Amino acid sequence: MPVGLSQPENLLSVKGVQLATVAAGIKKNGQEHDLVLITFEPDTVCAGVFTRNAFCAAPVTVAKNHLAQTSPRALLINSGNANAGTGARGLRDAEQGCVLVASAIGCADDEVLPFSTGVIGEDLPMDKIESGIKKLPAGLEEDAWAQAATAIMTTDTVAKACSRSLRIDNAEVTITGIAKGSGMIRPDMATMLAFIATDATVNREWLQQCLETAVNLSFNNITVDGDTSTNDACILAATGTSGSHMLDGSCDSSVEFQKAVNEVLIQLAQAIVRDGEGATKFVTVHVESAVNVAEAKQVAYTIAHSPLVKTALYASDPNWGRILAAAGRAGLDGLDINNVSIYLGDVCIVSKGGRDPAYEEALGQAVMSQDEISIRVVLNRGNEQATVWTTDLSYDYVKINAEYRS
Amino acid sequence: MPVGLSQPENLLSVKGVQLATVAAGIKKNGQEHDLVLITFEPDTVCAGVFTRNAFCAAPVTVAKNHLAQTSPRALLINSGNANAGTGARGLRDAEQGCVLVASAIGCADDEVLPFSTGVIGEDLPMDKIESGIKKLPAGLEEDAWAQAATAIMTTDTVAKACSRSLRIDNAEVTITGIAKGSGMIRPDMATMLAFIATDATVNREWLQQCLETAVNLSFNNITVDGDTSTNDACILAATGTSGSHMLDGSCDSSVEFQKAVNEVLIQLAQAIVRDGEGATKFVTVHVESAVNVAEAKQVAYTIAHSPLVKTALYASDPNWGRILAAAGRAGLDGLDINNVSIYLGDVCIVSKGGRDPAYEEALGQAVMSQDEISIRVVLNRGNEQATVWTTDLSYDYVKINAEYRS
Repeated sequence: MPVGLSQPENLLSVKGVQLATVAAGIKKNGQEHDLVLITFEPDTVCAGVFTRNAFCAAPVTVAKNHLAQTSPRALLINSGNANAGTGARGLRDAEQGCVLVASAIGCADDEVLPFSTGVIGEDLPMDKIESGIKKLPAGLEEDAWAQAATAIMTTDTVAKACSRSLRIDNAEVTITGIAKGSGMIRPDMATMLAFIATDATVNREWLQQCLETAVNLSFNNITVDGDTSTNDACILAATGTSGSHMLDGSCDSSVEFQKAVNEVLIQLAQAIVRDGEGATKFVTVHVESAVNVAEAKQVAYTIAHSPLVKTALYASDPNWGRILAAAGRAGLDGLDINNVSIYLGDVCIVSKGGRDPAYEEALGQAVMSQDEISIRVVLNRGNEQATVWTTDLSYDYVKINAEYRS
Repeated sequence: MPVGLSQPENLLSVKGVQLATVAAGIKKNGQEHDLVLITFEPDTVCAGVFTRNAFCAAPVTVAKNHLAQTSPRALLINSGNANAGTGARGLRDAEQGCVLVASAIGCADDEVLPFSTGVIGEDLPMDKIESGIKKLPAGLEEDAWAQAATAIMTTDTVAKACSRSLRIDNAEVTITGIAKGSGMIRPDMATMLAFIATDATVNREWLQQCLETAVNLSFNNITVDGDTSTNDACILAATGTSGSHMLDGSCDSSVEFQKAVNEVLIQLAQAIVRDGEGATKFVTVHVESAVNVAEAKQVAYTIAHSPLVKTALYASDPNWGRILAAAGRAGLDGLDINNVSIYLGDVCIVSKGGRDPAYEEALGQAVMSQDEISIRVVLNRGNEQATVWTTDLSYDYVKINAEYRS
């Protein structure tokens, strides 16, 4: 059961963006929608961030190439098969998907970006994808964000989508995004696909910068299991159909727009964690008073990845020794444990490197029994900080991942 | 159930080393032996390797200090309580244990080294430890290695001990060791205690070097859950009672001795993995043709720590895409995936960065169905290699760690 997450509501359509979904039969049961087409008006500008996994999937390679050459007119996304570890054939299949879409909607092949998510190492069923693509254009509509959010799911249990609107000049500007992912989640873009569109008018270079800023505050701060996927991608498209002036980072409106994009991405990123495989807790790990952001993240991730911390979270057990041990092994040069404090929620559990004198088990237990838990580590050696969002490690995590292919 | 591991047999006593155990009531059920005394003849030399966790436990601090100053005459080990995260009181308690032993057997306080393993963050029950220490000297005998191996266990399900003997000059030299640990296991010395003694005559400086060499080939190559403990310690004591000449690394006998010590430590290290919490598989991850040992270990540990790889191992699922993805995200500079091959046992599953053309699922399935599995990654970019031993991630891992304190 996802933690504090329900079906998305109040999704706003984005002028100039249309979506369609179809059950192409890529997923095993054959009934679920598993192929999505998203089209953009001409003159839409597009930014992208992709996985840093050296074994990146074929569609990632193709999407990066196409994005570098053109302004995309369409995204083709399939769930149920990642087209990763598929060698030269995988690249041909990803390109072929673009050719089919280009011919169906009338654009250049490299104006289409392909995305895939699902099982690694199996070839794409191109016959099914070809049949699916033929059906998609007829179904395109502005109001299909929720359907698209559902069709890109794999082990997700809830669709992830949200919208924000803001006023720029006299125009109402909308930002709507969808995302998927619940396993293989960690920084450097996890098995996570996110597609965000806005009708704002944005300078292409600044759009890329805006997306990278938002990703660093959102998707790059989440972890479920420490595994970085081969397929991650996050796309931000700006159609310019709202009629606002061009945002390039230099005006107050740019600041407001950046803030709204951050909010959308943070909400989507947290939704991925809330729906983390087997998650029963939503956990915020905050590390402060660090020398730099890198070491703050290092400590936060060491805690967030520790199976012992995660199983204690699952058990609602205030076994703070495991948090302390994880912080201690994060590998910080010259860390003086006598300066370190650790809080569970507002409860100080460790001060001066040992159990806080005022700490009582009942206080920790009260925090750990909640669904949403914050762990705060104060290093007392600098002024930087970092926050990471994660989940616990439950029986269901093992069950889901031991049975994924069966 | 441990994987391919049974109760230790044929343990050899070591002349000059005596052991005693008692049920001091530190462990919750009150019946199990949980306090161990090991004494050494005068002139025994001793080497030690300790945890690198910045939050090291009180007994580790005390043992390191004492070892730096003297030649130990006794080791005091308790299970059931780690005396970690216990601040100034923890240090006083660890020192007090040494004082009590020194008075009971007649040696200096700093000739005693303390060791603790168990729950973090609770004060040692010094009254129980004091009563226990009073009973220990009367029980000392040369032939109690098996009892000691059992008394230091925490979540271990099987005692871990082994012996080797070799001939040096005309003397029969014995090496016997015991170890404990099954959770919080990874390099840099995990929640792992190991005590090894030999009756060889060894130069103290070389003994330390010999121990570090062996630890790097054994305990530093194992991982169960990636958590490094606050309490790890490995001690190698040489009594010199066998009458052999002094080993200092310069003779053939030193080479033979090093080899035997390596064998003892590797057997103990592998026993810890075989008894890993919830383990149903014993997994060897071997990475070869790396530029250096560090990057080989980096890839091996990324695979060994991946929850997705570990759950696939548990499910006996040849989901090689997860291995490939883990290798890809290990962070190697300029890794060319088109040169990488991956083997499951003798079966080539990935070649040139994609599924090997000859690979069939049935071949991978046959390997994965075994209890002992080897994963071999060939990077094809250098001449160095590394091996890591690990386990799968099962329901029982979660169960054990979610219920440890209940």
